[in-house]
Amino acid sequence: MIEESMVFWIGALIFGLSSLMFTILENRNNSRKNTFNSHVFVSFITTISYCIMALGLATVTAEGGGLIYWTRWLFYAGSCSILTLDIASIAKKPNEKKAEVAIFTFLTMFCGYLASIILTVDRWLFFVLSTAAYIGMLYTIFNKANEESSKISSIMWFVLITWSLFPLVWVLAPTGFGIIAVDITAILYLALDIVTKIIFGIYVSTRK
Amino acid sequence: MIEESMVFWIGALIFGLSSLMFTILENRNNSRKNTFNSHVFVSFITTISYCIMALGLATVTAEGGGLIYWTRWLFYAGSCSILTLDIASIAKKPNEKKAEVAIFTFLTMFCGYLASIILTVDRWLFFVLSTAAYIGMLYTIFNKANEESSKISSIMWFVLITWSLFPLVWVLAPTGFGIIAVDITAILYLALDIVTKIIFGIYVSTRK
Amino acid sequence: MIEESMVFWIGALIFGLSSLMFTILENRNNSRKNTFNSHVFVSFITTISYCIMALGLATVTAEGGGLIYWTRWLFYAGSCSILTLDIASIAKKPNEKKAEVAIFTFLTMFCGYLASIILTVDRWLFFVLSTAAYIGMLYTIFNKANEESSKISSIMWFVLITWSLFPLVWVLAPTGFGIIAVDITAILYLALDIVTKIIFGIYVSTRK
Repeated sequence: MIEESMVFWIGALIFGLSSLMFTILENRNNSRKNTFNSHVFVSFITTISYCIMALGLATVTAEGGGLIYWTRWLFYAGSCSILTLDIASIAKKPNEKKAEVAIFTFLTMFCGYLASIILTVDRWLFFVLSTAAYIGMLYTIFNKANEESSKISSIMWFVLITWSLFPLVWVLAPTGFGIIAVDITAILYLALDIVTKIIFGIYVSTRK
Repeated sequence: MIEESMVFWIGALIFGLSSLMFTILENRNNSRKNTFNSHVFVSFITTISYCIMALGLATVTAEGGGLIYWTRWLFYAGSCSILTLDIASIAKKPNEKKAEVAIFTFLTMFCGYLASIILTVDRWLFFVLSTAAYIGMLYTIFNKANEESSKISSIMWFVLITWSLFPLVWVLAPTGFGIIAVDITAILYLALDIVTKIIFGIYVSTRK
Repeated sequence: MIEESMVFWIGALIFGLSSLMFTILENRNNSRKNTFNSHVFVSFITTISYCIMALGLATVTAEGGGLIYWTRWLFYAGSCSILTLDIASIAKKPNEKKAEVAIFTFLTMFCGYLASIILTVDRWLFFVLSTAAYIGMLYTIFNKANEESSKISSIMWFVLITWSLFPLVWVLAPTGFGIIAVDITAILYLALDIVTKIIFGIYVSTRK
């Protein structure tokens, strides 16, 4: 049996290294000298989140018995808002729509936090509210997306598909129906974090 | 006797519906295509807040015996900051003053949260600090308001009068002197929320 | 023996008065009419923080026995982010870099909060993460600082030296090695708060 704390330490290490990598990558790139280095912050905030989970701080036990690391969703509220702000910039949204996308993302993750920390059946209400905010975020990003170049569209589809796997894991994990175990949950989230935060970041930082 | 959880469920329903209404209203209006749809977020954040109160999560019991739903004030910190940012935009304030208005509102509600969660007489200290931040917010909005059109002034007076009823309810409710009961408190706040967040939003969204 | 609550009340009084002073100072100065009055907010947030500490709310006891007022760091996350945003403006940074400086400051103080509330040896991990964010903040401010005027540079050096004394106090206080007592810690932090928030604010508000 794999212990999840090992998974979290590996995650902390990977995101600690990717924080450094993005710092170097974005400072080397002269054309990005005056841009907001969002990927440094996304990786750094994720590093803090993994350290807290690795140390087993601030968890609750699901009715089915599995540990729920609810802090994850509060840190996503920070990191993913910065990430979708970057995605909205790539999609050339006006500042007002960028703000909407970031706030919808924040609310998605905040309701995800409530759905995770609440152990009774009431949690599904916040899962529904989280989904509503997520749909609002996607709608704001995808709206008029056909006016953008196909390259931007491919990023949007990548985001849509990979991000939508997070609530799927949530539903299968101890937070939802408890079909998959805590350690497998940790591995799946880590894989999704690497894809959506590091691989996505490298692709965006190095294109053009 | 009316149970307050029923009031909160009605509030959750009303604000859930108004979130949908503002989404439709603001997307139909082409002249507002690239504006920040603040009323969608104000209603949606208020929906989350009412769900939490309806489920009776995270409360404290006042010395006088009444339940205090302190989470209300943390959600106001989010929703009302977005609302006053919109009001400052209507008053054509420069961006620096908009930021000041939003932060003053946040601090008003945050001190209101401290005044609500603290049960001893010390809570009045935070009521005073909250009032100081509220005065700072009003001063920043009203300053030079005479240079604006009379229509804008009428909005400002509407805000001044309706918003100032919130601390009045706070003082009379179990949070303050405990003169009015928990269920009446819930009804009064709901009425004020509907006036300041939905009726105000419809008026602002549909004018001109 | 000096009791630390007296130090905190003195701090609350000093920062309450400086909130008023900056309100008057910045409203009198016509050239700053449309600027963001950051020092008002820095002082006001610090006032709230000192009131909470003076009332002895929300503390933990270190393994060495001293009380840890961890709320201090959460309020620094707000006040110091506003302060470094102002410093980045003085250094004529573009908006993207101002945002980076503010977020790095927020993360420095947030990790400082985690390092303070965690009592085991694990806290040093968050001290390291806090230091990493602090270095990121300093790097973003100092980068290309040689292109700026010498006056700006002198402000930067003042910030570097005075701000770096905060982690030094943290290491010597009950949060770190417990070499200095709780009351001395409170006095040292108050002295540093006055220098970095009030004296710095007066200097910046009155120059030119």
